Amino acid sequence: MREIRLAARPNGWPTAETFEIAEAPTPEPGPGQVLVRNLVMSVDPYMRGRMDDVKSYVPPFQLGAPLEGAAVGEVVASEAPEVPVGAYVVHGLGWREYAAVDAARARVVPAADNLTAYLGVLGMTGLTAYVGLLDIARFAEGETVFVSGAAGAVGSVAGQIARLRGAKRVIGSAGSADKVRHLVDELGFDAAFNYKDGPVRRQLREAAPDGIDVYFDNVGGDHLEAAIGSLRKYGRVALCGAIAAYNETSAPSAPRNLGLAIGKELTLRGFIVSNHNRRMPDFLAEVGPWVRDGRLKARETVVEGLENAPAAFIGLLRGENTGKMLVRLR
Amino acid sequence: MREIRLAARPNGWPTAETFEIAEAPTPEPGPGQVLVRNLVMSVDPYMRGRMDDVKSYVPPFQLGAPLEGAAVGEVVASEAPEVPVGAYVVHGLGWREYAAVDAARARVVPAADNLTAYLGVLGMTGLTAYVGLLDIARFAEGETVFVSGAAGAVGSVAGQIARLRGAKRVIGSAGSADKVRHLVDELGFDAAFNYKDGPVRRQLREAAPDGIDVYFDNVGGDHLEAAIGSLRKYGRVALCGAIAAYNETSAPSAPRNLGLAIGKELTLRGFIVSNHNRRMPDFLAEVGPWVRDGRLKARETVVEGLENAPAAFIGLLRGENTGKMLVRLR
Repeated sequence: MREIRLAARPNGWPTAETFEIAEAPTPEPGPGQVLVRNLVMSVDPYMRGRMDDVKSYVPPFQLGAPLEGAAVGEVVASEAPEVPVGAYVVHGLGWREYAAVDAARARVVPAADNLTAYLGVLGMTGLTAYVGLLDIARFAEGETVFVSGAAGAVGSVAGQIARLRGAKRVIGSAGSADKVRHLVDELGFDAAFNYKDGPVRRQLREAAPDGIDVYFDNVGGDHLEAAIGSLRKYGRVALCGAIAAYNETSAPSAPRNLGLAIGKELTLRGFIVSNHNRRMPDFLAEVGPWVRDGRLKARETVVEGLENAPAAFIGLLRGENTGKMLVRLR
Repeated sequence: MREIRLAARPNGWPTAETFEIAEAPTPEPGPGQVLVRNLVMSVDPYMRGRMDDVKSYVPPFQLGAPLEGAAVGEVVASEAPEVPVGAYVVHGLGWREYAAVDAARARVVPAADNLTAYLGVLGMTGLTAYVGLLDIARFAEGETVFVSGAAGAVGSVAGQIARLRGAKRVIGSAGSADKVRHLVDELGFDAAFNYKDGPVRRQLREAAPDGIDVYFDNVGGDHLEAAIGSLRKYGRVALCGAIAAYNETSAPSAPRNLGLAIGKELTLRGFIVSNHNRRMPDFLAEVGPWVRDGRLKARETVVEGLENAPAAFIGLLRGENTGKMLVRLR
């Protein structure tokens, strides 16, 4: 079987040399494990942080070892009676064709033609949007919400949940005119702008002349500074990601206006979705029906072939995806 | 009578030209008002913001009009039966020798030889420390707390409340060796450092090698950045003040490490004490006895004479005070 390993730690942007594709023996499942043939894997911005050798909330990837990440696959051998051969499971050992997975760390999902949803809108990605908007930013009906990276996997779901939960106004930023159209025409955002068209601060002020109540931050930097400027009294920020900084080799210079948080009594709160898994049932109960009846749309950008996973990951960091970025292995 | 007026809006640091002392007719109390002879007035860092002509949580001071701020005085004439002549009241019309005050906006306090406490440790200043530490930063027993501006009126109370509430370790920063000694020797801080002695980040790391759980921010800037670096998982920041920036004419540099708030799941929350007045009874019930029995100490820096109030205010911004900065009018 084949797997993608970390060949070198990137200094700034990852490149082809960051990765190597290698042959490895297909693993044998031990007691309590299942052998999974991976069908689709996820690439996510947080993986960039694990490529650096720094202490963080997840340990760094090891040089020469296969990368890890969410994947969905079919059980082809089982040493765990509760997860039989033929079951479909979501687990954490992507970036390889076969994985021996502890049954306790595999979540069985219904066999269906939309298996990829369990990596995106109905998986950790969707849960991130749900928890960030509702639990962290404490969004309430009637409020105005700004989402950055709004055409991405998390942002597109966050904005749509806000709309379906009765937001007064939902505003998104994205990195191309096509994405901006997608947000407004297909996802029902009230306004959207291309952050490459001009200062975020000015564009946000034009899109939200009365200010915003909630900011769902996937970007950091000047997006966060603009949002702090536009937030109204008692505004809240869910700090979910800071993709603007992930590949920078110098420290970001924004937000320079954090002092406004005092007088406006703002709350900025960071979060990691893995500490909020207990909300998965609530999330699926509320968002699942919206996905099934089409009121919440989840586009995917699918790249074919494990060998193209590094390019998919680099493309994700460059914003080449709309919605969830996935790699199909077979 | 005499009053201090705003003569010119400062550009950067206020100077003697910012103020003018003027004669004015002693006001007549209207129905429901009392005439107060001010005895002591407060100068506070937040007043610097009101000197700029910008929208904020309190309206700006008006050019040519007397400044405002907390004061304590004696009622010398009353058109409000509930506040008789001879009562002592705390109110918001300082910077002048006599004020006509709506009785509804005057708080009667017991006549005592420590009237000044109602402007400081037992007034809004102490309440700010109490609310910021307990309600905003949600300090809990056994945690490590860092307070910047720790020898100031708010910081010194915040640090002592943390100690009396069972902090594992209380660390303070201040701007002179004398203040550092005061924090450790008299106020019971476990460690303190002079921020002028070297990078805050390094000094904080040495004082709190295992990190901090709560940061009470009176300073902003590099103090906030250092605290974000030292905060442990689930740490909280009470954003109370940003005195490092109040007199700067360019935007402060960011905390360049705010992205750490994601992985550490930090919460940063700004607050204004005037929205938390409902906590005054709890505050007085808990902190009052500590002040009376000497377990919580509140030093004051008292300047004599209304004519010296501008110098007292500028000195406050320069850190010339230890504890509460007050001006005695008679």
